[in-house]
Amino acid sequence: MSELFDGVLAAGPVRDLVGDTAWLQAMLDFEAALALAQAEVGVIPVEHARAIAARCRAEHYSAAEIGARAAGIGNPAGPLVRALTARVGGPAAGHVHLGATSQDVVDTAAVLVTRRAVGALLVDLAACGDLLARLAAEHAATPQAGRTLLQQAPPVTFGFTAAGWLSGIDAAAARLRALGPRLAVQYGGAVGTLAALGDRGPAVLAALARRLDLAEPVLPWHTERGRVGEVAGALAAVCGAVAKTAGDVVLLAQAEVAEVVERGPDGSGGSSTLPHKRNPVAAVAASAAAAQAPGLVATLLANAAHEHQRAAGSWHAEWRPLADLLRCAGSAARWLRTSLERLRVDPDRMRANLDLTGGLLSAERVTAALVDSGVGRLDAHDAVTACCHRFAGPGAPGEGSSDGGASLVDVLAGDPLVGAHLDRAHLARLLDPATGTGNAELFVARALTSREADR
Amino acid sequence: MSELFDGVLAAGPVRDLVGDTAWLQAMLDFEAALALAQAEVGVIPVEHARAIAARCRAEHYSAAEIGARAAGIGNPAGPLVRALTARVGGPAAGHVHLGATSQDVVDTAAVLVTRRAVGALLVDLAACGDLLARLAAEHAATPQAGRTLLQQAPPVTFGFTAAGWLSGIDAAAARLRALGPRLAVQYGGAVGTLAALGDRGPAVLAALARRLDLAEPVLPWHTERGRVGEVAGALAAVCGAVAKTAGDVVLLAQAEVAEVVERGPDGSGGSSTLPHKRNPVAAVAASAAAAQAPGLVATLLANAAHEHQRAAGSWHAEWRPLADLLRCAGSAARWLRTSLERLRVDPDRMRANLDLTGGLLSAERVTAALVDSGVGRLDAHDAVTACCHRFAGPGAPGEGSSDGGASLVDVLAGDPLVGAHLDRAHLARLLDPATGTGNAELFVARALTSREADR
Amino acid sequence: MSELFDGVLAAGPVRDLVGDTAWLQAMLDFEAALALAQAEVGVIPVEHARAIAARCRAEHYSAAEIGARAAGIGNPAGPLVRALTARVGGPAAGHVHLGATSQDVVDTAAVLVTRRAVGALLVDLAACGDLLARLAAEHAATPQAGRTLLQQAPPVTFGFTAAGWLSGIDAAAARLRALGPRLAVQYGGAVGTLAALGDRGPAVLAALARRLDLAEPVLPWHTERGRVGEVAGALAAVCGAVAKTAGDVVLLAQAEVAEVVERGPDGSGGSSTLPHKRNPVAAVAASAAAAQAPGLVATLLANAAHEHQRAAGSWHAEWRPLADLLRCAGSAARWLRTSLERLRVDPDRMRANLDLTGGLLSAERVTAALVDSGVGRLDAHDAVTACCHRFAGPGAPGEGSSDGGASLVDVLAGDPLVGAHLDRAHLARLLDPATGTGNAELFVARALTSREADR
Amino acid sequence: MSELFDGVLAAGPVRDLVGDTAWLQAMLDFEAALALAQAEVGVIPVEHARAIAARCRAEHYSAAEIGARAAGIGNPAGPLVRALTARVGGPAAGHVHLGATSQDVVDTAAVLVTRRAVGALLVDLAACGDLLARLAAEHAATPQAGRTLLQQAPPVTFGFTAAGWLSGIDAAAARLRALGPRLAVQYGGAVGTLAALGDRGPAVLAALARRLDLAEPVLPWHTERGRVGEVAGALAAVCGAVAKTAGDVVLLAQAEVAEVVERGPDGSGGSSTLPHKRNPVAAVAASAAAAQAPGLVATLLANAAHEHQRAAGSWHAEWRPLADLLRCAGSAARWLRTSLERLRVDPDRMRANLDLTGGLLSAERVTAALVDSGVGRLDAHDAVTACCHRFAGPGAPGEGSSDGGASLVDVLAGDPLVGAHLDRAHLARLLDPATGTGNAELFVARALTSREADR
Repeated sequence: MSELFDGVLAAGPVRDLVGDTAWLQAMLDFEAALALAQAEVGVIPVEHARAIAARCRAEHYSAAEIGARAAGIGNPAGPLVRALTARVGGPAAGHVHLGATSQDVVDTAAVLVTRRAVGALLVDLAACGDLLARLAAEHAATPQAGRTLLQQAPPVTFGFTAAGWLSGIDAAAARLRALGPRLAVQYGGAVGTLAALGDRGPAVLAALARRLDLAEPVLPWHTERGRVGEVAGALAAVCGAVAKTAGDVVLLAQAEVAEVVERGPDGSGGSSTLPHKRNPVAAVAASAAAAQAPGLVATLLANAAHEHQRAAGSWHAEWRPLADLLRCAGSAARWLRTSLERLRVDPDRMRANLDLTGGLLSAERVTAALVDSGVGRLDAHDAVTACCHRFAGPGAPGEGSSDGGASLVDVLAGDPLVGAHLDRAHLARLLDPATGTGNAELFVARALTSREADR
Repeated sequence: MSELFDGVLAAGPVRDLVGDTAWLQAMLDFEAALALAQAEVGVIPVEHARAIAARCRAEHYSAAEIGARAAGIGNPAGPLVRALTARVGGPAAGHVHLGATSQDVVDTAAVLVTRRAVGALLVDLAACGDLLARLAAEHAATPQAGRTLLQQAPPVTFGFTAAGWLSGIDAAAARLRALGPRLAVQYGGAVGTLAALGDRGPAVLAALARRLDLAEPVLPWHTERGRVGEVAGALAAVCGAVAKTAGDVVLLAQAEVAEVVERGPDGSGGSSTLPHKRNPVAAVAASAAAAQAPGLVATLLANAAHEHQRAAGSWHAEWRPLADLLRCAGSAARWLRTSLERLRVDPDRMRANLDLTGGLLSAERVTAALVDSGVGRLDAHDAVTACCHRFAGPGAPGEGSSDGGASLVDVLAGDPLVGAHLDRAHLARLLDPATGTGNAELFVARALTSREADR
Repeated sequence: MSELFDGVLAAGPVRDLVGDTAWLQAMLDFEAALALAQAEVGVIPVEHARAIAARCRAEHYSAAEIGARAAGIGNPAGPLVRALTARVGGPAAGHVHLGATSQDVVDTAAVLVTRRAVGALLVDLAACGDLLARLAAEHAATPQAGRTLLQQAPPVTFGFTAAGWLSGIDAAAARLRALGPRLAVQYGGAVGTLAALGDRGPAVLAALARRLDLAEPVLPWHTERGRVGEVAGALAAVCGAVAKTAGDVVLLAQAEVAEVVERGPDGSGGSSTLPHKRNPVAAVAASAAAAQAPGLVATLLANAAHEHQRAAGSWHAEWRPLADLLRCAGSAARWLRTSLERLRVDPDRMRANLDLTGGLLSAERVTAALVDSGVGRLDAHDAVTACCHRFAGPGAPGEGSSDGGASLVDVLAGDPLVGAHLDRAHLARLLDPATGTGNAELFVARALTSREADR
Repeated sequence: MSELFDGVLAAGPVRDLVGDTAWLQAMLDFEAALALAQAEVGVIPVEHARAIAARCRAEHYSAAEIGARAAGIGNPAGPLVRALTARVGGPAAGHVHLGATSQDVVDTAAVLVTRRAVGALLVDLAACGDLLARLAAEHAATPQAGRTLLQQAPPVTFGFTAAGWLSGIDAAAARLRALGPRLAVQYGGAVGTLAALGDRGPAVLAALARRLDLAEPVLPWHTERGRVGEVAGALAAVCGAVAKTAGDVVLLAQAEVAEVVERGPDGSGGSSTLPHKRNPVAAVAASAAAAQAPGLVATLLANAAHEHQRAAGSWHAEWRPLADLLRCAGSAARWLRTSLERLRVDPDRMRANLDLTGGLLSAERVTAALVDSGVGRLDAHDAVTACCHRFAGPGAPGEGSSDGGASLVDVLAGDPLVGAHLDRAHLARLLDPATGTGNAELFVARALTSREADR
C-alpha cells in the first residue's frame, strides 16, 4: 500500500478490503466465531464466548503494535491473541483461541478477506459487463475492420468485438463466483488433528464453518494449498480478461486508428507536456494492474508445497502475493469500468478505416464465391491472391499499385479465372465490407442471451 | 522433447501424447470432423467429406516437412492443409478446411491434445490416489511426529499425513475432470464471424463440436483465452499436489529421519559415487517436474491478452508452454506414482523419532489439561513453557538440561502450578505420544469416505 | 524440440546447439578434458588419458540409449560414463571420470552448451545491430511522429527510433559477452571436496579449467547457483531488447500506420484466408519467442536454493528451462534479424502521419517559446492547452473542431496571451514537425559512436 | 507496505527507503538537480534554480494529496510538479521541471531509490558475509556429513558448508556493486529528444547526471528497459543466495538433525501452542522474503517491451514490483543476518550424525583405494556397492543388516576382491569420516582469501 502510487495502481474498493484493518477484523472474526462455536457445542460457557466476541472489533487494536510484535513469532496472530486475551480479561480470557494455532487464524482470515474483496470485485465486473453488453447491443451491426496480427482483415462489427470482450469478463466473473465452495474455514490446531478439543473437535469445526458461512473442509487444509491456487487462478482470469479488453481499447484509441476515445473528466488523460493529448489513461492503468497477475500467481504456485504440518517459509510467502493479487485484480476491474464509462465510439471512423484497403479485406469472399461456382479452393485462392497483389502493388496497401489506379473490382473482373465466373456487380457486392460481417450480429445475440441466462 | 533428458524429465505417457504425431493427428481430426460436419449440414457433398476424412491420418504426413514450411506463414496448419488438399485431390480437394483459418485448426488441436493428455494424467493420479488411500488406511493409527517449520510438533499419525497428501491429489484430479465443459471447439474463420459459411456457420459449428465431443462455445474464443488459463490452473494444481507429497517423501527419507524409503529396482536410486545410497529418485524427479509449473503458467497468463481478432505473438507464445505444462504435469504424476509404489514405511522409526524429545511434543496437552482444571490459558501456557525450557536446557533438545537428567514428568510435577493440578500418572498419560493424536484417525476416515463418495 | 513447431518457435542455430547431440558432446568434452588434465598433473598415465579422450565423440553414443537408462539414477551422466568406460575398455577404463560425480559432468556440459549457444546468439545480435545501425544512420533526419501511450506526441526521427532499438540490442550483447568470467568449470566430486584426488584435486581443477577454457571457480559451485541466474538474466536481456524492437515493428506495420512493412520471400507473411495480407511474421515470431523468457527465468530463479551438497530436485529442475531459454533467445534474435532484413521503411507515410494532427504534436514548442518570451510555465501551458482543445474539438483529433476549420496557427494567433508574444510566422515555424525533432540526430550520432567504441 | 505484516515480511531499513517519503524526496531531488544543472549550463538564472531547489524537501508535500491527484494523469510526477511550482511561486516558478516529462522524474527517482536501498542492502550483506566468514574459519576442520538429495554422503566440514554459503552471498553483493555504471539518469522530455532545450539539452543532461552522481546514458532510456532488468537480476541474486543459506539452516535445525539452532531473544522462535519449540524463525522469514523474487523479476521482465516513446501500461507496471523486489531483498538480507547472529553450532551432534551410517559415507574412499591398488574402477565400485548393501541390509541404513551385526570394516575385509587389496587397518582409516574431508579446509582458505582480495 502506498498513498503516493495507489491512486493509479490500486484503484477501487479492494485496496482497503485487503488493508491492515480488514485483516485485523478478519482475524478477530475468526476468534469471535470460534468462541461462539465452542459455546454452541458446549466446550466453553456461552457468557465467556459472548465476552470474547464483544472484544473482537478491529478498532480496539493497533495494527502497528501487533505488527511490531509479530516479528518475534513470525506472524501477527500470536500478538493479536495476546492482546485480545488481555482485553477480555477475567475468567473468559482463558477460553480465547482454544485449540487453535496461528495458522488457523491467518488462513481463515485470508479466506474472509478474499471473500470480501471478491464481492467488491464482482460489483465492478458486473458494471463492466453491463457497459459491454450495451456496447455490443448498440453496435451489433456497426461495421469495423477485423484485425489479425494487427493487420486489417475481413470486417466484423464493433458489437461483435464488444461481445468478445464481454465473454471474457463474464467468464472471469463466473470463475470468481464458483470459488464459493472452495472458500473453507481452516481450524486444525497445532498439527491439524484438533487434539486439544478431543472428540468435540469436529463438531466445533462444523459450527465454526457455519458461523462464518464458509465451507467445512473434509480435512484441515493447512498444508494442502490447492485452494490458494484456485483463488489465484480465478483472479488471474479477471486480469486476463481485463488485459484483453483494455489492450484493445488502447489500440483502437491510437491517433491513426481513432475508433474509440476515452473522454474523461478535465485533467484526466492529459499530459504535462502534450496539451492536446487524450491518453486512454484508464485503459492504460487497467493494463498495468492486470500485468501484475502472472508473476503473483507464479509466486503463489511456487510456494504450494508446504512441508509436513506447517511450512518453513512457504506459508509466510503467500501473504504478500495473495493480498497484492486481490488488489491488482480489483484495480484492473475498477479501471476497466472507468475506461468503459468514458468510452466514446466513432462509427464513421470505423467505416473510413474499412475503406482504407479498397476492398482487400473482403477478398476472401471472392475466393468463397469462386469455390461456390465450382472452382477448386486452392486455384481460387491463388487467383484471388494474385489479383490482390496486382491491385495492392509490391508492398503494403497504399505503396502503389502495379495496375495504375484500377480498383480491386477492375483487377478481379479482368482476371481470366475470376472474370469467367463472377461479373462486376457481383464482385462489387462481395467487396462491400458492410455485407461481409458474416454471423457477427448473430454471435452478439448469442452472447447477450447467454448473459441473461446466467443471471 | 529430448531423448537424452526425457527419461528423467518427461516420464509417463503424456510425453508422446503431446508430441509431433499427436499434434498432427489432432489437427487432422479437426479437418476430418469439419468436413463431415459440413456434409451433415449440407454444405458439402457427403462423399467429398468422406474422401477428406479418409486422408486425415497422421502417418500420411511428415512433421518435418510440414514444420519446415511452417516458418513462412508462422504456423503449421497452413502447410498441413496444403498437404492434405494435395493428398485428397480431385473435386473433394476444394472442400478441405472450408471457412476455417489456421488458428481454428491449431486451437482445436490444442484442446484435443489437452483432453487426451489429461486422460492419461488422470490414470496416474488415480493410481497415486489408490496408493495413498491404502497408506492412509493402513497407518491410520501409526503415531508419527508432527512437524511444523521442520521442528517436531505434537504427534499425528502417518495415515493422517497420507490422507493430507491424498486430499491434494484428489482435489487436483477433480479440477482436471471439471475442465470438461470448458474444452470447447474453436471454429470462427478469418476473424471469428464464420463469414465464409453464411448463415449455415452456426449449424456447422454445432455439428463440429458434437463430432469432436467438445463443448460448443457461445462465441468463437480465438482471442478470449480464459480457457487456456483454466487448463493451466488445473495442471498447476496437479503439480502443486505432487510437489507437496514428493517434498514430504524426500524429507521423511532423510537419513536422520528415515521414516520412509524408496525401494526401487536395482540400479535406481543408486549413486555413481556413493554405493550405499538409496536416493528417493522418483520423489526427486517428481519434485523437479512439478517445479516447472509456476513459470509455465505465468507465461500462459502473461500472453492472455490477444489483440483484436488474432494476436501478434501471444497466440504463438502459448504453444510451447502449454505442451510443456502438460508434459511436466504428466511426468510429475507418473514419478509420484512410482515413488509411492516404491515406498516402504518404518513405523518403528516413527516411534523412535517421537521419543527423541522426551515428551515435549505433547506439552500442549498439559496446557490444555491445566485449562480444563480451571487455570487461565496464558498462565498455563507460561508455566508449561517454563517447565519445557528447564527440561530441555538452554538450547535445542539434547543440548543438555538444566535439571540434571530429570524427565519432563518430573519437571512438570515439580512445578508449583502444574503440580497443584495434575498428578504424575496424569502427566505421564498426557505426555504419551500415542494417546495424543487427537482426531487424526477420524480425519483419515473422513478423507476415505469423501473419496468413495466422489467416485 | 519439435519438428512440427520449431520452424516457428526455435529458429536459428541455437536449437541444435542445445540439442541432444550437443549435450552428449559437451559431457564427453568434460570427460576428455578431465582425463587429460589428470594426466597433466600426473594422476593417471598420459596414454590412458589419450585413450579415453579418443572415445569422447558424441557419434559413438546413442542419446536414446543413454536417456533410457538415465531414469534409474536420475541423470544421463551416469549411463554415459558407463558407456564410455565400456568403450574405452582395457586398463584405461579404470581412469574414466576419476573423482567426478554426475553433477560435475552435467553442470560443466551445461556451461559448454551455454557458451556455444551464446556464441551463435552473438552473431545474430551483431547482425541485428548492423542492420539497426544502418537504419539509424540512413534515417537520422527522417521525421516520424513520436508516440506515447500509443498517442501521437512531438516528432522524433526514425533514425532516433532505430537508435533506441539499437541501444537495447547492443546492451544485451554486452551482457552476454560479460558472462565470460562467470562461465566456470564445475568439478568437486561427490560433495565438492575433491576428496578422491587427495591434495592433487586443486591442481586437476585448474588444469581442467584451462583445457576447457573456462574460469576456475574459487569453490566448486554445485549448490551455489548464482551463475545460472546470471546466464538467465543476460538471456532475458536479449529477449527484452528483441521484444521492444519487434513489438514496435508490429505496431508501425499496422495498416493504419504503415510506416514499415516486412517484405519477405513469396509465401512468407501471407495468410491462408487473407490473400492480400503482408503479416509481419518475423517480428511476430520474434515477439513470441521473447515472451517465453520471464517464465523461464522465474523457474531458474525459483530453483536456486540447492539443498546442502546436492539439491533434491532443484538441480534437475534447471535443465529444461536453461535449454529452453537459450533456444528461445536464439529464436528471438534470429527472427528479429530476419524481420530487419525484410524491413522496408516508408518516409512519406511517416510524414503523412505527422500531419494527421495539424500541428498539435508540436504544441509543446509553443509553450516553450512562450516561456522563453517570459510567460510563466503554467500560464503558457494552460493557454496552449486551451487552444489545442479549441482546435481539436471536444474529442479526439478529427472529431471536429469547435473553431470551424481554423488551423492551429489561426487558433494560437487568436489567443490573447499567445498572440501577444508570438506572431503567425513564428507559430508556423514552431508547428512544423520537421523542425521539432530536437536532439534526435545528435543522439543517433552518439549511439553510433558509442557502438564503434565498444567494438 | 503493511504495519501488520511488515515486521515479518519487510524487515530492515529498505522498507522505509522505498516508502512514500523516500519516493517523494527522490522525485524532488531530480527537480532540484535539474534546476541547478540548467543554471549551470545557463538555461535558467542561478537564483531561480536555488529557489526551486530550496523547495525540494519531501516534508513540504503530502503523499496522500499528490497520490490522490495522480489518478487523473496516471502518475504522481504531474501533481508533484504542480505542487512544487505553486510552492516556488514568483518568477522562478516558470523554470520548474523545464524540458522534462513525468517519466523523467519517476524513472530517475526510481534509480535514486534503488541506489539508496541497495546501499542499505549491502550493509546487511556485508554483515552476513562477516558472520559466515567467521563460521567458515572457526569450523574449517569440523567434520559434518555431506548430504546429497538429502541423503548422507561423504563428509565435508561445517566450515566448507559455510564457505559455500559465503561464496553465494559475496557474489550477490558483487553484482549489486557492479550495478553502479548502469544506474543512469533519465532525462529526455516528451519523447526523448530534449527538444524543449534546443542544443543545450545534452549539456544539461550531463550536468544533471553529475549532480545526482548517476551515469549519463548515451541515449535517454525511457523505453529501453534493460537497466531495470539488470537491477532485478542483481536483486534476485541476493534472494537466491539468501534462500540457499536460510534453507540449509532450516534443514540443519531439524530436531532429528540438530546441528545448528537459532537462539533468539526470549519470545522469538517460540510457538503459541508448542512451548518447547525453538523455531528457526529468522531463517524461515528470510526464505519467505527470498521466495518473492522469481515472480517479481518475471513481472519486470514481462513488461520490458515499452511501446514507441512511452509505454501504454508497461511503465506503470514496473513501479510495484521494483519497490517490492527491493523490499523483499532487503528483508531477506536482514533476516538472514539475524539468523546468523542467532546461530549456535553443535559440532558434537555433527559428529554423531556422521557416525549414524557406520562408515558408509566413506565407502567411496575404499573404491578409490582399490583403484589405486590397480583394480578397475567399475569392478571396484561394484564390489564396494555389494559390501555396502550386505552391511546396510535390504533397506535404509538401520533397517537391519543381512550380515548379522558385522561392522562395515568386517564386511569389506571379508570380500574376496576388497580383502585381497586392503587390510583391516587400512579399511578402518579409510572409513573414519574425520580423515575423509578431502580439500574442504583448503577450499575454506581459498574462499576467505578471495574475500579479502575483493575488499
